[in-house]
Amino acid sequence: MSLALGDIAVKIGAELRGDGSVSIYRLATLENAGDGDLSYIVSPKFKKQAAISKASAMIAYPGFESKRLPLLVIKDPHLGFARAMRIFHRSYPQVSPGRDRSAVVAGDVKIPPGAYIGENAVILRGVSLGEGTEIHAGAFIGENVALGQNCRIFQNVTIRENVKIGNNVVIYSNAVIGSDGFSYCWDGERHLKIPQAGTVIIEDDVEIGAGTTIDRATLGETVIGRGAIIDNLVQIAHNCRIGEYSIICAQVGIAGSSTLERGVTLAGQAGLGGHLTIGENAVIEGQSGVTSDVPAGAVYFGCPARDIGLAHRIEAILNRLPEYISRIRKLESLFKKEQ
Amino acid sequence: MSLALGDIAVKIGAELRGDGSVSIYRLATLENAGDGDLSYIVSPKFKKQAAISKASAMIAYPGFESKRLPLLVIKDPHLGFARAMRIFHRSYPQVSPGRDRSAVVAGDVKIPPGAYIGENAVILRGVSLGEGTEIHAGAFIGENVALGQNCRIFQNVTIRENVKIGNNVVIYSNAVIGSDGFSYCWDGERHLKIPQAGTVIIEDDVEIGAGTTIDRATLGETVIGRGAIIDNLVQIAHNCRIGEYSIICAQVGIAGSSTLERGVTLAGQAGLGGHLTIGENAVIEGQSGVTSDVPAGAVYFGCPARDIGLAHRIEAILNRLPEYISRIRKLESLFKKEQ
Amino acid sequence: MSLALGDIAVKIGAELRGDGSVSIYRLATLENAGDGDLSYIVSPKFKKQAAISKASAMIAYPGFESKRLPLLVIKDPHLGFARAMRIFHRSYPQVSPGRDRSAVVAGDVKIPPGAYIGENAVILRGVSLGEGTEIHAGAFIGENVALGQNCRIFQNVTIRENVKIGNNVVIYSNAVIGSDGFSYCWDGERHLKIPQAGTVIIEDDVEIGAGTTIDRATLGETVIGRGAIIDNLVQIAHNCRIGEYSIICAQVGIAGSSTLERGVTLAGQAGLGGHLTIGENAVIEGQSGVTSDVPAGAVYFGCPARDIGLAHRIEAILNRLPEYISRIRKLESLFKKEQ
Repeated sequence: MSLALGDIAVKIGAELRGDGSVSIYRLATLENAGDGDLSYIVSPKFKKQAAISKASAMIAYPGFESKRLPLLVIKDPHLGFARAMRIFHRSYPQVSPGRDRSAVVAGDVKIPPGAYIGENAVILRGVSLGEGTEIHAGAFIGENVALGQNCRIFQNVTIRENVKIGNNVVIYSNAVIGSDGFSYCWDGERHLKIPQAGTVIIEDDVEIGAGTTIDRATLGETVIGRGAIIDNLVQIAHNCRIGEYSIICAQVGIAGSSTLERGVTLAGQAGLGGHLTIGENAVIEGQSGVTSDVPAGAVYFGCPARDIGLAHRIEAILNRLPEYISRIRKLESLFKKEQ
Repeated sequence: MSLALGDIAVKIGAELRGDGSVSIYRLATLENAGDGDLSYIVSPKFKKQAAISKASAMIAYPGFESKRLPLLVIKDPHLGFARAMRIFHRSYPQVSPGRDRSAVVAGDVKIPPGAYIGENAVILRGVSLGEGTEIHAGAFIGENVALGQNCRIFQNVTIRENVKIGNNVVIYSNAVIGSDGFSYCWDGERHLKIPQAGTVIIEDDVEIGAGTTIDRATLGETVIGRGAIIDNLVQIAHNCRIGEYSIICAQVGIAGSSTLERGVTLAGQAGLGGHLTIGENAVIEGQSGVTSDVPAGAVYFGCPARDIGLAHRIEAILNRLPEYISRIRKLESLFKKEQ
Repeated sequence: MSLALGDIAVKIGAELRGDGSVSIYRLATLENAGDGDLSYIVSPKFKKQAAISKASAMIAYPGFESKRLPLLVIKDPHLGFARAMRIFHRSYPQVSPGRDRSAVVAGDVKIPPGAYIGENAVILRGVSLGEGTEIHAGAFIGENVALGQNCRIFQNVTIRENVKIGNNVVIYSNAVIGSDGFSYCWDGERHLKIPQAGTVIIEDDVEIGAGTTIDRATLGETVIGRGAIIDNLVQIAHNCRIGEYSIICAQVGIAGSSTLERGVTLAGQAGLGGHLTIGENAVIEGQSGVTSDVPAGAVYFGCPARDIGLAHRIEAILNRLPEYISRIRKLESLFKKEQ
């Protein structure tokens, strides 16, 4: 497959500068690009690599110029790259509709004509499957789970009973949705288990990473809002509510009953205590430990997490702390001498 | 199903205040409760929500008063709630005894009449299963594993060879018990793998969360003590010993050969170095990194973890560190002026 | 099985001191050793335990002396122990070659005579398997995956399409190799998924722990270099390159496009930002958060991670910070008095 550069410009919403008839066969990074490759430069920081890249053309930020190569100029070159990738590659592996004969599917489950049920998948009674939904090999779908249209449940995923999942939801391999919340009460002799009578609701267009665990609610629902994206090995406890279009990076942990409002970003390995609210569009930096509510739009860092401004001032002082202690000592000796 | 409030009072060990004939159909949070719902208030902090709750009755702490609603007063309202939840809900999903024909079970394995073997479960030779034990879909039970009575092994769990598990043990989906410890020795050319000849022993009444990994010992056993509860995505390395009734929250990691004594609490994302001892009833706060032994009853926080008193004093000072540095500068300039 | 101590000395490259005819039946720790056991002492720190150990012989560091017991003296007693363990124990469980009839294997896949395919394993079309390679129960091998010789893929592992794996690679239970990288771009309305068109290459002699996730590249490859060892629940993002013989401990997370050079050590729960380079033989201490490149041979600690020398000086000062603040106050009051 090849496309003329001019056609790609139209498809990705970029401005063509130079020869639009160049044939593009694939995308590549600046370092790896060769003849027929379209590459991309997102900022002036990569000018050196761009100067020696063997790409045939580049997606570039406004202001970048090249005498050698035709350019597709776009305000957000990363978005241009994303759109171009979607022209040349499928977003997900292709499967043929139908049910593998090794799958175990309860008699009352209706499989829509465009759905796919992979090898050794297990689907229990009461499950509903939307058109185009894929259940890959070894995945488990518990009783009365509802799955919308065009969902992709990858290999060895476990979805426990009664979980409700919208349309276009992708759950990557070995994730676990709807396991029991970690909810016990000491009765003087032992940890009494509190039944987890609630469930999980996953709204449309959510993606959930490999090995991630999302627990069912004690009462009511754990909710993952529309369009949220969640990376690998994330832990979301019972009764959390994840706001629409939030971003949760790998190995983040969120304790019970916490709420992310819309558009929150939690960077890798961040941890949130229970019963907290993180305001709209707030950002929690990597490895931060949040122990109180965070206002909308704030950026927090550290453990315990502080406003990023204060956190950075403290970090800068810490780096000079040995020097400051010397200065205290000097003041003390000067004072002593004077007396 | 409904129960008279007065009957619930007796069952949960609470004191009835008000009309005991009120019919209760279910439990609900203060916010979500409606007609026929029993809710709960654990502390004065939630008085506002209680004042506008539409619950028909409340489990409440001693001292709480309501003119509107009948109350079940109990010293520990969370325990009252836990007990009430256990009246209205099963602690675990119900399954029908028997073996699904898609399960693969070695010829020498005896399945007790009340046991359950789910779809595509795999049970190898030499395995012993106690009465009432459930092996859910896709779980793997390796050679010579011993499982006691009334255990619940959820979907896609892996239990490797020779692991010994007591009674009433629950292992949630996709957990891995008895994988090889991370034990290698550099021989000058490569990391020489040390065979992991030991195993894992899990005592009675333990619960282990989804995606958690507990490694087998190099020699001897990794031991999870009776009644310990372990959340999701926890890592417990080879030769660790987890004390009875300990609490290990999500994403905690414990390096090799460390010991938790009885009743230890490790909050979320805490990490323990190897060969450490954490004393009875000690508490390690979230994200703390423990690098030395912790005495019984202590509370530690930070990375490296310190006694909570010192840790809090340091945190308070850090928040004012920019101010303190200004004060050092002021002293310096005053001293200079004076001279 | 038993071996004469003198024969073990030869096999592990140690110097025999004392009676080489002693029969050794097994290895044991100093505490647990009994008659017929060979134990080991790695440093003077364990002299007390050695003095009361009931072992029949000990592997010991040069300089250690015992009047009671014959010794195998070796510069690195841990390596001596590793070698002895490999004499007495298999490194991996033994399986009988052949394919279980419950496995689902695509028609075009050739199973070498010495290979093993376990119960309910799934192997899709285009897969190549080297001689002696084992695919354990419930594992999934996606389309066109190439597996070299003598690999061990444990239970419930997922290996996605097109991943390339060398010889002698071990992947422990429930790990996921080749899941989609976490790569999206906000288009003003939603997170646009960027197709992950690359793959994962795992070179020879790599070991990957239980529950670990290694994502495929956006373009090109995520590479795990020869002889690297990776513990449980580690996250390695798209386009990372892990240097040969690196050591990655449990729950480490590495963001996209970062590079470890040869022989790097990342201790437990450490986190690396994206697009970083960690130099040859560098060590990152536990729970550290790395936000910039690390030079070869450096040791870093903290979040953000600093050179260990500075980090330790800062830690020492922090422990005395309340005292230093008192000293500032005292200087202030002295100064005030003087005026």
